[in-house]
Amino acid sequence: MPLGSDEKNGERCERSICMNNPHLESLKEDILYHLSLDTANHDLPKQFGDVKFVCVGGSPWRMKSFTEYIAKELGLADPKGEYPNLCEGTDRYAMYKVGPVLSVSHGMGIPSISIMLHELIKLLYHARCTDVTIMRIGTSGGIGLQPGTVVITKKSVDATFLPRFEQVVLGKTVVRSTDLDIELAEELLQCGKELGEFETVVGNTMCTLDFYEGQARLDGAFCSYTEEEKQNYLSEAYAAGVRNIEMESSVFAAMCKLSNIRAAVVCVTLLDRQKGDQLSSSHDLLHSYQQRPQILVSHYIKKTLNAFKS
Amino acid sequence: MPLGSDEKNGERCERSICMNNPHLESLKEDILYHLSLDTANHDLPKQFGDVKFVCVGGSPWRMKSFTEYIAKELGLADPKGEYPNLCEGTDRYAMYKVGPVLSVSHGMGIPSISIMLHELIKLLYHARCTDVTIMRIGTSGGIGLQPGTVVITKKSVDATFLPRFEQVVLGKTVVRSTDLDIELAEELLQCGKELGEFETVVGNTMCTLDFYEGQARLDGAFCSYTEEEKQNYLSEAYAAGVRNIEMESSVFAAMCKLSNIRAAVVCVTLLDRQKGDQLSSSHDLLHSYQQRPQILVSHYIKKTLNAFKS
Repeated sequence: MPLGSDEKNGERCERSICMNNPHLESLKEDILYHLSLDTANHDLPKQFGDVKFVCVGGSPWRMKSFTEYIAKELGLADPKGEYPNLCEGTDRYAMYKVGPVLSVSHGMGIPSISIMLHELIKLLYHARCTDVTIMRIGTSGGIGLQPGTVVITKKSVDATFLPRFEQVVLGKTVVRSTDLDIELAEELLQCGKELGEFETVVGNTMCTLDFYEGQARLDGAFCSYTEEEKQNYLSEAYAAGVRNIEMESSVFAAMCKLSNIRAAVVCVTLLDRQKGDQLSSSHDLLHSYQQRPQILVSHYIKKTLNAFKS
Repeated sequence: MPLGSDEKNGERCERSICMNNPHLESLKEDILYHLSLDTANHDLPKQFGDVKFVCVGGSPWRMKSFTEYIAKELGLADPKGEYPNLCEGTDRYAMYKVGPVLSVSHGMGIPSISIMLHELIKLLYHARCTDVTIMRIGTSGGIGLQPGTVVITKKSVDATFLPRFEQVVLGKTVVRSTDLDIELAEELLQCGKELGEFETVVGNTMCTLDFYEGQARLDGAFCSYTEEEKQNYLSEAYAAGVRNIEMESSVFAAMCKLSNIRAAVVCVTLLDRQKGDQLSSSHDLLHSYQQRPQILVSHYIKKTLNAFKS
């Protein structure tokens, strides 16, 4: 099996995936069930060994359209426009690859992205990838921001505004750090400035287990609080530095940190939650907002690859 | 707009959806964003008013194949075999309808099914549905059971084996009951006996937020415990009546109970977790196991509809 590409180039300071599971070594074969990939029937180093950037997002359609977009941006577009789904044996997730960029969908919520990340981290490890950067490009509700603003996450915080992720292991709660790469966040902010196409800010992101009650919405099937209580909660969040709310960043940050992978969260705000709860903007406007994290992250990838070449 | 069908038949004791949100009354329009449906552009009572059974499951493909299967079983099969996805404007969830049976996918994990259920419960309420039964047909890991056994959930318990669901509301934890309908579980067990095609049992179901560490697997990207500690945890779960483990039943039970909807969880076990962690059975065998909850629930629906007619 080929070595990771950086290893071939003789680089000294390559950053490897850290595998925190001694049991894996004793597995004859590793089945990445929800990705419909495994080590017995797939040559993972050959297929994925050159991956340097992984972009993840909730929707499979969006991750496919991101692949088409970044392929054009990097001058790697397939003339036939064909990007096969590398997880075609399952409908749990979708995965696309173009050059050094892997694009994977993760569904909605912490458990869904967590299953994907377990298997993705093992995939990158089996493929002997090095110097990988993972970026989540998603959507969110904003607080005190113009809809369409892109938020680069400084710290991912829980519903009490603390930067931690609680993982249950054998029935006991373990608290993990949700630190993200500060340098990467700053580089992404710089990319936003260079583009100048839309507002980009750095702020804390609140990660919740629920879209309705968990985010103080008034329009779910259940609501036991008043509009005033909702507004007070969102104001407290704002005071704690929270600029947007989504449902995956905490476990994403925790898992990438434990695995020694540079990670960033880049989400566009689809509405200002202090002004409403329903996503009532036109389909076209919401669609154009959703492209912004893609544009920002593509700019960063292009810039990084160009710097590496020169 | 037409009334619910039972109301037309003059029945006295119809069971309505309980709406626990006073704010909904003041909405001019309700956008069910993740289902790509709304009250302004869709005549929900006309389109969904006759729904009596809702079957939900993780995978969109499986929910489509369930629709094709139940359509044949009920003699309602479309000769062209066409069942349009009623949520075609989004790739978050898929929804199909045949006669009184609605079939909806929910993705993986509590947050993902919770978003779908908020919007489904509002859909059924707006459509003025009555006497609705919701059944989750899913897959799970078994404890001490032959793979392929179907488990009907008695109680959905958390990772400490308690029958409760913790919901965070405005940053504070609220504990909700995960009671399911005992009569419905018994009726489903009786259907299993009548079919006699596979083992069907009633047992507690453990619902976790994570597939790997949260279920004591040794094959995730992270593992900090020994095989012995894993086995001890699973033995404790078995002693507490747990027969299978999945990732959606607790919030499903809690939300259906609060909404006054009869609910059941019917999951097949794909493996015995005391014997392993990896899903290494053949694709065909796993596929045939996944059809068992569909067969059981279809039998129940057919029987119930026939009893209603006679």
